[in-house]
Amino acid sequence: MDRKNEKSEAKGKGGNKPLQSDKPEGFLQVERILTFQLLPKIIKRRVYALKRLQLQSANIEAKFYEEVHELERKYAGLYQPIYDKRRDVVAGTVEPTDEECEWQSDREEVELAEDLQKKAALEEKQAESAGTDDPKGVPEFWLTIFKRVDMLEEMLQEHDEPILKHLLDITVKFSEPGQPMSFILEFHFEPNGYFSNSVLTKVYKMKSEPDAADPFSFEGPEIIDCEGCKIDWQKGKDVTVKIVKKKQKHKGRGTIRTVTKEVPQDSFFNFFNPVKASPDGMDEDLDFTLATDFEIGHFFRERVIPRAVLYFTGEALEDDESYEEEDLEEGEEEEDLDEEGEEEDEGDFDPTA
Amino acid sequence: MDRKNEKSEAKGKGGNKPLQSDKPEGFLQVERILTFQLLPKIIKRRVYALKRLQLQSANIEAKFYEEVHELERKYAGLYQPIYDKRRDVVAGTVEPTDEECEWQSDREEVELAEDLQKKAALEEKQAESAGTDDPKGVPEFWLTIFKRVDMLEEMLQEHDEPILKHLLDITVKFSEPGQPMSFILEFHFEPNGYFSNSVLTKVYKMKSEPDAADPFSFEGPEIIDCEGCKIDWQKGKDVTVKIVKKKQKHKGRGTIRTVTKEVPQDSFFNFFNPVKASPDGMDEDLDFTLATDFEIGHFFRERVIPRAVLYFTGEALEDDESYEEEDLEEGEEEEDLDEEGEEEDEGDFDPTA
Repeated sequence: MDRKNEKSEAKGKGGNKPLQSDKPEGFLQVERILTFQLLPKIIKRRVYALKRLQLQSANIEAKFYEEVHELERKYAGLYQPIYDKRRDVVAGTVEPTDEECEWQSDREEVELAEDLQKKAALEEKQAESAGTDDPKGVPEFWLTIFKRVDMLEEMLQEHDEPILKHLLDITVKFSEPGQPMSFILEFHFEPNGYFSNSVLTKVYKMKSEPDAADPFSFEGPEIIDCEGCKIDWQKGKDVTVKIVKKKQKHKGRGTIRTVTKEVPQDSFFNFFNPVKASPDGMDEDLDFTLATDFEIGHFFRERVIPRAVLYFTGEALEDDESYEEEDLEEGEEEEDLDEEGEEEDEGDFDPTA
Repeated sequence: MDRKNEKSEAKGKGGNKPLQSDKPEGFLQVERILTFQLLPKIIKRRVYALKRLQLQSANIEAKFYEEVHELERKYAGLYQPIYDKRRDVVAGTVEPTDEECEWQSDREEVELAEDLQKKAALEEKQAESAGTDDPKGVPEFWLTIFKRVDMLEEMLQEHDEPILKHLLDITVKFSEPGQPMSFILEFHFEPNGYFSNSVLTKVYKMKSEPDAADPFSFEGPEIIDCEGCKIDWQKGKDVTVKIVKKKQKHKGRGTIRTVTKEVPQDSFFNFFNPVKASPDGMDEDLDFTLATDFEIGHFFRERVIPRAVLYFTGEALEDDESYEEEDLEEGEEEEDLDEEGEEEDEGDFDPTA
């Protein structure tokens, strides 16, 4: 059946809000203030008391989210041996035993697969002969994920692909208790000809308390800032810049010469050199770029890292798809099942009554 | 700035999923299986090992959500004194002190309010003279919330309103550790002429483990069933039924008589008599009705109960509204900021170079 997904902690922005009226926000606000101001003073006073109680709630809620963060840190430790094993299998440093590879595939899927396999037999041979006879681990594991997830694929450029073949693992570290709340994404690379770093990092800083200016909008920790890292590119290998030729004319003599200049170029690796928030919050393009970056950071942490293999096989994408469809269905108008009017029955009745 | 809302625990259905391609799901599935089956056998084997590791993750994740549930239980205890105080102020059994009512209103709002107040002065007088001179607590607190929240307003019928004026409080209870995961909504009523129950309850049962048939779809606890309660209506006061007149014709004699019959009628109180899931999961209307019910139960627990006063004043509705707008903005196409082509500078240069 079409179960409603119930999240113990899904207090966030998302699918759990009811659709409110079509009135524009400004109108709603005036309506709200008017309604409130029309209340007798003695009642307004009591509502202020309720709002003060609500402030207390918000502060307790902030503590709740700190404990959830602690819980996530604790569980990160429990997941770690599994992630380590994944890294080793992907890299090919560990070959899983037959028992570790037992998998009961879906019957329908197997049949479909066999069918496809016959048709694809030739292609498979080609694929196998093209690659090494004895491939190491799961080649291009992370690159495949980048290509399959739209949000990541949008950042990916052709010149990034050979570099991402050297990506061994992506991990997340949570801030220690007592520290300002944050998490660090770590991208682990094998030695390669592009840069000398073995780990590229991106730190996401979070605000975990109600904002003094607008305490009631608090819905749990939110990312407020991020920081990349310096990539030590090998000479001429930096894909975040390109060389352009410029013609320069000497003012006095009128002679022309050609110089080369580095200009920024699209690349996933710009992820490690994020824009800074505009200090006045007035640059919408910049803030949009940053909001997208925060979304990607959150997505790595919450989806890609915990279920990488499902993005590799594509299974996680189908789940995401069907959730979206479900949401659409829920938005449709409900059929009116209300029965109106009198019934006209020509039924039997007990003549002895 | 336009901050990205970051939820430590927002793993659910909602705003954090990337938009995937436009291809229909069936096509995606075939594509996925084909891609996977084209992998050399030795690699497929390793991917199965990764999927087994993913199963282990899912089981650890289930334990994580159980601990989050425990945390919610613990925090329910911390919120309780605040909720009790709210109930007392709303009911008028406690009059808050001046200190407890101090509230620094927004300057703009105050000015707008004063302006409105002048215009509304007459209406206010009317409102005050119409009601009691000394209203108790915050009259119609919960009924106002029902009227303001679309999701609740859709259930509300005119005949429900006088009954809901007697609603004193809505509370939530979480299941004990070791018990199957569930939560109970309790609607507390003052003595009234409609029914003799002092509390109406609705239990929501949750599934907190990965489904054996589809373990990778696990995203945390989900509501799977609910149970209402029997309402002991006073004679003739049951608003969930209406009396209709039916004409019946005697088969033999052809005489017609009019009998009365109770038929179901729309009412919020049908919330306590929910439909049952179709056993085969094949009745779409029924499953849709149930999914909506689950959504409402979740909404009471996560939004209405924790921040009732903000729905009473309407502030929570504006927050919900602006979140929706934000979501829309994020969905828009990003402007292409990529700079292409060579630059043509006619700049100065150092003739000594």
